[in-house]
Amino acid sequence: MRPEIRIERLVDRLSRLAEFGLQQEGSVSRLALTPENGAARDLVVDWMEDLDLDVRIDGIGNVFGLRRGSEDLPPVMTGSHIDTVGKGGRYDGSYGVLAGLEVVEALNEAGVETRRPLCVSSFTNEEGVRFTPDMMGSLVHAGGLDLEAALAARDRDGTTVGEALDAIGYAGAETVGAIAATAFVELHIEQGPLLEERGVPIGVVENLTGISWQAIKIVGEANHAGTTPMAGRRDAGHAAARITTFISALAESHAPGQRATVGSLELDPNLVNVVPGRARLTVDLRNPDDAVLCHVEDELSRFLTTLESEEGFEIDTERLVRTEPVRFDPVIVDVIERVSDSLGVPSMRMTSGAGHDAQMMARVAPTAMIFVPSRGGISHSGAEHTDPEHLLAGARVLLGTILELAGAM
Amino acid sequence: MRPEIRIERLVDRLSRLAEFGLQQEGSVSRLALTPENGAARDLVVDWMEDLDLDVRIDGIGNVFGLRRGSEDLPPVMTGSHIDTVGKGGRYDGSYGVLAGLEVVEALNEAGVETRRPLCVSSFTNEEGVRFTPDMMGSLVHAGGLDLEAALAARDRDGTTVGEALDAIGYAGAETVGAIAATAFVELHIEQGPLLEERGVPIGVVENLTGISWQAIKIVGEANHAGTTPMAGRRDAGHAAARITTFISALAESHAPGQRATVGSLELDPNLVNVVPGRARLTVDLRNPDDAVLCHVEDELSRFLTTLESEEGFEIDTERLVRTEPVRFDPVIVDVIERVSDSLGVPSMRMTSGAGHDAQMMARVAPTAMIFVPSRGGISHSGAEHTDPEHLLAGARVLLGTILELAGAM
Repeated sequence: MRPEIRIERLVDRLSRLAEFGLQQEGSVSRLALTPENGAARDLVVDWMEDLDLDVRIDGIGNVFGLRRGSEDLPPVMTGSHIDTVGKGGRYDGSYGVLAGLEVVEALNEAGVETRRPLCVSSFTNEEGVRFTPDMMGSLVHAGGLDLEAALAARDRDGTTVGEALDAIGYAGAETVGAIAATAFVELHIEQGPLLEERGVPIGVVENLTGISWQAIKIVGEANHAGTTPMAGRRDAGHAAARITTFISALAESHAPGQRATVGSLELDPNLVNVVPGRARLTVDLRNPDDAVLCHVEDELSRFLTTLESEEGFEIDTERLVRTEPVRFDPVIVDVIERVSDSLGVPSMRMTSGAGHDAQMMARVAPTAMIFVPSRGGISHSGAEHTDPEHLLAGARVLLGTILELAGAM
Repeated sequence: MRPEIRIERLVDRLSRLAEFGLQQEGSVSRLALTPENGAARDLVVDWMEDLDLDVRIDGIGNVFGLRRGSEDLPPVMTGSHIDTVGKGGRYDGSYGVLAGLEVVEALNEAGVETRRPLCVSSFTNEEGVRFTPDMMGSLVHAGGLDLEAALAARDRDGTTVGEALDAIGYAGAETVGAIAATAFVELHIEQGPLLEERGVPIGVVENLTGISWQAIKIVGEANHAGTTPMAGRRDAGHAAARITTFISALAESHAPGQRATVGSLELDPNLVNVVPGRARLTVDLRNPDDAVLCHVEDELSRFLTTLESEEGFEIDTERLVRTEPVRFDPVIVDVIERVSDSLGVPSMRMTSGAGHDAQMMARVAPTAMIFVPSRGGISHSGAEHTDPEHLLAGARVLLGTILELAGAM
């Protein structure tokens, strides 16, 4: 008997998990380590136990469900996260965890034993909305952040990660990083428009973009909008607008790899008849090629220096996030592509423009990702949707990839 | 005995009036028709009565202090307002009212009788912060707004102008508009940098800019900043930035008369890693030449249409304010200039870039304004300041102008 993904089981689990934190308008609000997140974890642990997985919870609250292999080797791991942003969807993260459970159930049902053990993981606080940094659980697992430092991170109300873990009963006994994977594969929705636009159901993710976030504060001079001649102004809002158009043009001159976004902007005093004296904006720059990303950062920096030296603004920049691009493991990438082909499912190689737990796992294990289409490219919204046929295709490719990596017997 | 302005009296009155609503950091918070504004009105009325003025209060709460002339003719009027913005200064408005009282006191002291009566006015709600529209009292006086409509205007808490007038005891019995001036002169701080920059103590204001305010709402599409290619974006924040740089360039191409400001801008969802889906901004356009102002408005409108038709944004504009430029009375302008010359005080002709009660009074009487320097061009702030020597120069020019208009005997 061959193991077969049963899409109705997977869709049912996605629906049941989405009930935790479901909002009236259809979004899911399940920030990391909240009571809703705790209840959703309990259900995932129940499912793991029903599937005869050996459940381990580590010190940062990462949940691992282990399935024995015929040999006592490091496991092949798959997984993602089940926390959401404030108004999230039901697929982002959860799909990767629950497809991992579906793979296990299909193997159990078919009585398939793999040579290597398997492990389905659900990492703590991938979204980073309640606690900073994001991808916290996988980062701690990969040794990139000390457990103590992570446990001490506080939310806006002053609650620490450690306290929040205790409150929901997920401060686990397993040593962080002890479950060392021999390979890691993460299945995730694309959260972008490319697969849908090209009508391709599987994205073979060969790399992940570098991310540069900075906050820019501009101090100019607030003045009366009617009585101040244009020539004498130091309009912080106008400077912010020029930065916005500058980085956009910069991204276009490094198309198609470069992205540049001013997502957040605030003016002070923000009144119709006052020239803005201060502005605060964020710049999000991304590129899978670090050399180009560095060049774009330098160009922006030079532009800001010109605004200071030639136009009298005071400008402060604060680096919020800087991650280097990740090249995923070419062997696993090939396996994913080959499995897709053998299943007759069209695939295309692509770059992940967003951060994922796989980015952290790539530090400690050969890693790659599988994407499925997101309708309209939308995520972090109640409108997030992936068709069941694409959920099925992704899970089937994950099953085939895991079987190949784990050495089916 | 010649009438002489006594600067210490004027400065003392300015200081005593500033105590009503004085904030710790030095600004004055005396929004229209608040208890602080009522207490300040009481003091002004006391002063008027001390100066033997016949105090009349009309239905919108405008306060008039009449000084008899030797002939029973319509009065020459001077005045301004004593309400402030949320964090105002001690000179904006108050200087014009109290300098009017100082002119009366100087005339009383010297025993000077004028042919025409004089009138010192203090108009209700010039700033328009608590109740819309601004310049309400002078607008009602000039017949530009029905009393009933003005009394029905509500603040954020739902209180009407009528209720607020009753609460402070300033719903007066005088018929609005009944005190018809034969001429109106308003003395005011410049609220801009020109007089200070050029070292000239008196601005002879020959016209007042037209003002065009609009709110622009842009609907684009919110998307993930990492996964959405630049080419597929409809970034409402980027569109707002382009509008900002567009109107600024437009103003420069119509220098020096044209002003253009995006003072207020809000993005939604305003997150670092989300392409803004919506933006709301305000545009403030001003020009003393209405034909140019109309042309600039048209250019902006065409630009917005292009953003809609070629780039798929939905754009709604809402007109918030539109006033036509005002040409002040050339005879009074000449008188002010001549009086300055005769006093040996340097003056320059200029445009008012802000709205003033004189703008409304110009509808019903020959009108002009006198400006004095504002340190650093700053107003609407606790840092608002005018040197005593400039306060003196302005009051002396006002005295001379009033004497000439009223026909000293």
